[in-house]
Amino acid sequence: MIDRIEHLGIAVHDRQRSEELFKRLLGREAYKEEAVEREGVRTVFFQVGESKLELLESTNDESPIARYLTKNREGIHHIALAVTDLEAEIQRLKLEGFEFISDEPKPGADGKMIVFIHPRSANGILVELCADMDPKHPNTSSTK
Amino acid sequence: MIDRIEHLGIAVHDRQRSEELFKRLLGREAYKEEAVEREGVRTVFFQVGESKLELLESTNDESPIARYLTKNREGIHHIALAVTDLEAEIQRLKLEGFEFISDEPKPGADGKMIVFIHPRSANGILVELCADMDPKHPNTSSTK
Repeated sequence: MIDRIEHLGIAVHDRQRSEELFKRLLGREAYKEEAVEREGVRTVFFQVGESKLELLESTNDESPIARYLTKNREGIHHIALAVTDLEAEIQRLKLEGFEFISDEPKPGADGKMIVFIHPRSANGILVELCADMDPKHPNTSSTK
Repeated sequence: MIDRIEHLGIAVHDRQRSEELFKRLLGREAYKEEAVEREGVRTVFFQVGESKLELLESTNDESPIARYLTKNREGIHHIALAVTDLEAEIQRLKLEGFEFISDEPKPGADGKMIVFIHPRSANGILVELCADMDPKHPNTSSTK
């Protein structure tokens, strides 16, 4: 079950300049900054209703965001959909023919387990599925 | 006041093929199809939590979506933010230095009055602001 848009990931060159811009656009402060070492990104989060905007700044030249920004302009990099049961949703979508970038959910920013559907099976859009991490078992997703 | 992500506009070549794809991705049916003649688009709407995904298929070669798809691949075309008072938000954002594509709100799909901020003042992202149309005065926005 896909519940809502959890966040939009926005690739930016300079997180401080973009944080200032989104603060003026949205009329509110960011609620969190967080580095995700294994992804090579620093993130800045803004709340918008039940969703978030997540600014993504690369911390090294080999990161997915750095590689994205060599080929594309700044802008919306991915859409993340919040799901209740991550494993069940992965299975459902595989049966529907969707192709995943990796089969194994991994820890993302903001206390989530995440997995990506390849843009070539999703109308050119990089789609993340995410679920809250189970606080008792931080390497697995919560199934609520 | 910006309340929530009202929708994401997704440029597609073939709305029927994409409707089928998003139906499988989201595990639900589209709730509406609507043509917007003045924009040269046919739209298909899916509800996801408090937001929508709006598929946009061009109906003529001169439409904004047709022009977009000559230069870009299918994908997220714009993000629409729901505001309570459209005029007040336009004035606030002009004072903050944001550049609008047109000053005058116009009727969009799904009973909304809409206006666009130019991507060059918003981190490369085409941002739509929208508010429910006032049913008593269909050419003005509701101020709730």
